[in-house]
Amino acid sequence: MTDPTHPLDRATRLARHPDGSLAGHTEPAYANMVGPFGGTTAAAMLNAVLTHPDRLGDPVALTVNYAGAVADGEFRIDAVPMRTNRSTQHWSITMTQGDAVTTTATAFFALRRETWASTEAGFPAVPAADSLPRMDSSAFAPWTCCYDMRFVKGFWPEGSKPEQELDSVSTLWIRDDPPRPMDFVSLAAICDSFFPRVMIRRPRRVPAGTVSLTTYFHADAKHLARVGAKHVLATARASRFGLGYHDQSAEIWSEAGELLATSHQVVYFKE
Amino acid sequence: MTDPTHPLDRATRLARHPDGSLAGHTEPAYANMVGPFGGTTAAAMLNAVLTHPDRLGDPVALTVNYAGAVADGEFRIDAVPMRTNRSTQHWSITMTQGDAVTTTATAFFALRRETWASTEAGFPAVPAADSLPRMDSSAFAPWTCCYDMRFVKGFWPEGSKPEQELDSVSTLWIRDDPPRPMDFVSLAAICDSFFPRVMIRRPRRVPAGTVSLTTYFHADAKHLARVGAKHVLATARASRFGLGYHDQSAEIWSEAGELLATSHQVVYFKE
Repeated sequence: MTDPTHPLDRATRLARHPDGSLAGHTEPAYANMVGPFGGTTAAAMLNAVLTHPDRLGDPVALTVNYAGAVADGEFRIDAVPMRTNRSTQHWSITMTQGDAVTTTATAFFALRRETWASTEAGFPAVPAADSLPRMDSSAFAPWTCCYDMRFVKGFWPEGSKPEQELDSVSTLWIRDDPPRPMDFVSLAAICDSFFPRVMIRRPRRVPAGTVSLTTYFHADAKHLARVGAKHVLATARASRFGLGYHDQSAEIWSEAGELLATSHQVVYFKE
Repeated sequence: MTDPTHPLDRATRLARHPDGSLAGHTEPAYANMVGPFGGTTAAAMLNAVLTHPDRLGDPVALTVNYAGAVADGEFRIDAVPMRTNRSTQHWSITMTQGDAVTTTATAFFALRRETWASTEAGFPAVPAADSLPRMDSSAFAPWTCCYDMRFVKGFWPEGSKPEQELDSVSTLWIRDDPPRPMDFVSLAAICDSFFPRVMIRRPRRVPAGTVSLTTYFHADAKHLARVGAKHVLATARASRFGLGYHDQSAEIWSEAGELLATSHQVVYFKE
């Protein structure tokens, strides 16, 4: 299903060594200010399980901890099934460069089946993606060029609004660029594609970065495939800033109104 | 600071072996339908780091994965510092019984310092704890007797309301019983004290259980100590039910209106 020519597939491609460890390489297209975009790191960690011969079912929960900077270049991932039950499986995943652990993760996979279903969150009232201008990525880190982002609300601070008129909400349409059919790899990366909420809220540029990211997948592989290469609607907000960290909660919706994922993170910020 | 006579301290007490592993024992007071209450398991995992000689700072993020049932009795915890930076530290934590991994976790700790702060979430409009009746725990699992819970909204299903009139929101005042000063151990356990949202929403009893829980701590040890043994306000809701799982997002507030923690989980349910 993956397209070796797409930069996201290059960023998350893993070669399996005889000892079971995996080797990958950061992809220049997804470069951030320093090292790679965290979304591709999360997607590579998830892909280590998705491509594992012992993998059972689809991802339900993924937590990625950004323990240290990932340097541009080679990385190693070890993915270990910690416990396999009849229809569920828990994984522990570690990314290293040399002797340094850069990233840790846990993932919960399960065989999913149809059950009673209900979406309690509401799909935001938004204009169609086609009616909105695409964000100009030229002022941002290279990875932002790998996404077609169309902001409804909460774009990068313009400096024109006083603090008290703002909240931390951003809502945008987003898809991979070049277009790429939606799958867990793409969705895991998109969940980390929001600018840090502290910059939207204050609004100004401050040093900030994700330290831990948890994503819950509400769609299975079959549902995700239906999304195709269309934009998805992404919305994020913070509930608390303080003591050097803030949280962020996000929802990713298909154009058809299916809640594909909810994602939470805690973000370091300075001052 | 811990009180060896308090059942929560018995449930989370760990003896350190020469090889660095920790030994604990489930506490009958916190028994669930099968095995112990997941909140005490989460609290014991966190306590393995809190009591570790190499621990740096306070917890900021904790993810606990319930990989398999914990049997009543002895358990072992191994807590490994995966990476220590100047002011942050990432941990990997595993609970085992015999050869079986029952629980995995990651924790992010940091030295916290005062920064710009803002609470964007709103403290719910609720009556005072003293004005509400305490939940009668006699129909529930033993662990519920370890909490003084006073429901504002979203109590256990009475069977009197049709599905479409309900949402999955529960809001309640809660404190440890016997009263115990608030700390990270208590807060981590309280974050898993909500009944599964699926039972509130439908509303009816179905097999259900947490599979992964992530808590973000917005208070440091000093702020938490100020809460004392008072009730805290807890509120939780789901955004999506389907394919055998649902999410839950929760907030824990001090009586004084400080957001102490936000917590997210994914819950298995049947049918």
